[in-house]
Amino acid sequence: IQSKLPGVSTTIFSVMSKLAAEHNAINLSQGFPDYACDPKLIELVNKAMQDGFNQYAPMPGSTFLKETIAEKVEKLYNIKYNPETEITVTAGGTQAIFTALAAIINAGDEVIIFEPAYDSYAPTIKLLGGLVKTYELAPPNYAIDWDMVKKLFTAKTRMIILNTPQNPTGSILSSDDMKSLIKLITGTDILILSDEVYEHLIYDEQKHQSVMLYPELKQRSFIVASFGKLLHATGWKLGYCLAPEKLTKEFRKVHQFNVFSVNSAMQQAIADYIKEPKNYTEIGTFFQQKRDYFRNLLAESRFKLLPCNGSYFQCASYSSISDEKDTDFSMRLIKEFGVATIPVSAFYQKATDHKIIRFCFAKENATLALAAEKLKNV
Amino acid sequence: IQSKLPGVSTTIFSVMSKLAAEHNAINLSQGFPDYACDPKLIELVNKAMQDGFNQYAPMPGSTFLKETIAEKVEKLYNIKYNPETEITVTAGGTQAIFTALAAIINAGDEVIIFEPAYDSYAPTIKLLGGLVKTYELAPPNYAIDWDMVKKLFTAKTRMIILNTPQNPTGSILSSDDMKSLIKLITGTDILILSDEVYEHLIYDEQKHQSVMLYPELKQRSFIVASFGKLLHATGWKLGYCLAPEKLTKEFRKVHQFNVFSVNSAMQQAIADYIKEPKNYTEIGTFFQQKRDYFRNLLAESRFKLLPCNGSYFQCASYSSISDEKDTDFSMRLIKEFGVATIPVSAFYQKATDHKIIRFCFAKENATLALAAEKLKNV
Ligand SMILES: CSCCC(=O)C(=O)O
Ligand SMILES: CSCCC(=O)C(=O)O
Repeated sequence: IQSKLPGVSTTIFSVMSKLAAEHNAINLSQGFPDYACDPKLIELVNKAMQDGFNQYAPMPGSTFLKETIAEKVEKLYNIKYNPETEITVTAGGTQAIFTALAAIINAGDEVIIFEPAYDSYAPTIKLLGGLVKTYELAPPNYAIDWDMVKKLFTAKTRMIILNTPQNPTGSILSSDDMKSLIKLITGTDILILSDEVYEHLIYDEQKHQSVMLYPELKQRSFIVASFGKLLHATGWKLGYCLAPEKLTKEFRKVHQFNVFSVNSAMQQAIADYIKEPKNYTEIGTFFQQKRDYFRNLLAESRFKLLPCNGSYFQCASYSSISDEKDTDFSMRLIKEFGVATIPVSAFYQKATDHKIIRFCFAKENATLALAAEKLKNV
Repeated sequence: IQSKLPGVSTTIFSVMSKLAAEHNAINLSQGFPDYACDPKLIELVNKAMQDGFNQYAPMPGSTFLKETIAEKVEKLYNIKYNPETEITVTAGGTQAIFTALAAIINAGDEVIIFEPAYDSYAPTIKLLGGLVKTYELAPPNYAIDWDMVKKLFTAKTRMIILNTPQNPTGSILSSDDMKSLIKLITGTDILILSDEVYEHLIYDEQKHQSVMLYPELKQRSFIVASFGKLLHATGWKLGYCLAPEKLTKEFRKVHQFNVFSVNSAMQQAIADYIKEPKNYTEIGTFFQQKRDYFRNLLAESRFKLLPCNGSYFQCASYSSISDEKDTDFSMRLIKEFGVATIPVSAFYQKATDHKIIRFCFAKENATLALAAEKLKNV
């Protein structure tokens, strides 16, 4: 059998989490919390199941949840999305990304991505017959020179994938970035897929630059959000996609034949839960404290910390420690020091190794402290 | 924006369930139970959440669930699948179908389907650039003449989609069908996608003809199963795909970038639950009684019932009542008589109207009795 994705193997997140378990290492690799989500949330799911929310939810999502999402979005950004025609509940952020790409990309279409990038973008584009055009960001700031982005444009450019706050780098886009982007795409029919799953995880009083804040971007954007990240329940696999009606229409055509609909009890519970803004407004502060705690601990190590403006990932250079490849170095970290991380080369298609690894700090402080102890020995 | 699926609108199941709600009609359209699933199952989900199963499950599914599926399959069919390399847990049967097709179908590949067919097959194939080759089954028996199937074969034939028990017709494949199919495909490299989501819903002591029972088929088949149908919890969106290692490998490459993984607490709960075979072995008898109950009630109506050998769908001809189009007739059933059904023309791509509608009998006996009262007035 001839593979449609010959270059693809098991995603790095699975590989590393599995290795972490095998070597009994502290798992700072895959992005998920090691502490419990709010027990209230669990109670609400239990109640929803008891109340009979065990059959198919409506295809685009429960009306209650879509309306609550619209309220939340309006409260946070002062922007309106119509729950009926512009919001679709998905089985997590990744499914929303896959579905938006599947709805838009035709064979030969080009999609611009910024690397290092979440590892689903490139293979999904290729699976659909699209071509990946890559802009390589450089450490430590991973800033974008938009004039260089423009050079990637061709008649075939169909879409740009943004990701702010960015995984894995923790960098964020500024309002200047957005303005440059607007200049670039005005007059074109290039669409945007904006992966904003870490929208709440933004630090030091900075403001999340959602594409929805810019009308010229909003009207051409799919925005992807994640309840797993928001509610510390990545295993529930719930997220959503915001897009203007004409894009949502195409999104749902694929969605209905991909997963059809999404867990009904959990949709109900999440709607009940996020009705109450205080259940999510503290999450930025919560993770900023974790970031600071972890950074302070690692200050005493030989790792050189990169800036972290958002997300729950901290990148660090080990070039003053070793010149091993980052895959080898991270293997050795697991085996010899008992800490699992992600080698940032995994987020590039080409062999690109800046000797940087990624830590996930969405962990108990005790976990972070223990990991730091081990990392100080490196 | 140019649509990739210009002919596609909202799936008939959403349309009809919505109309049913709007007109306060009894909903025998979309396939889902109107009664509660086993409270034990809900308790097990609650327990799993309490126990902390709220973060990402392993990408291919929880090890416990995959092993329990392997045990269940071996107990039922005496066939072994390797949980590590041949079983993948999915966000429902539909996602498994989509993912298998996405993993295999290249632009220009041809896929043979039997119509009337579940409405995701054809648009999913088209979305992937494939060509749908349709074999039209004829009422009342919807039997397959395999010599005619052979005539659809070309050098481009990549896959055949089977569905037994069949939705919407309730027909099933026999061992003779399977033998004819084997003759047809031996020596070719045509793959099979076998949608067996109703595997347990098979009546009158007949035996489910899973493709796994035939080595020549098993080695080239993706088999799709549904926990929603098995456990009366369609809203949980859990199913799985069985396939030999070389096919599973390709399936997972797409799965990991589509939904990545599936609800962890529910996987844990379902594994606990189906460990106990008596929690699912009675389901065939349960639905056979519902079928018989509903058929007896409708015997006094002017509808002409078609055979129902499996699934939870009963088809009926109304040609002696009206010569309206089935879409018009089913609209009138909702509005004037308060019963929602599915017009079987929705399961064909071409305009094909045999004046047949589909009832879902996965309902409380009281619901079925009330619906029958109304249907007797037609
Ligand atoms: C879907 S598993 C990956 C989780 C995540 O966002 C990450 O670790 O980057
Ligand atoms: C995914 S909604 C459709 C449910 C079903 O199997 C049917 O009604 O045919």
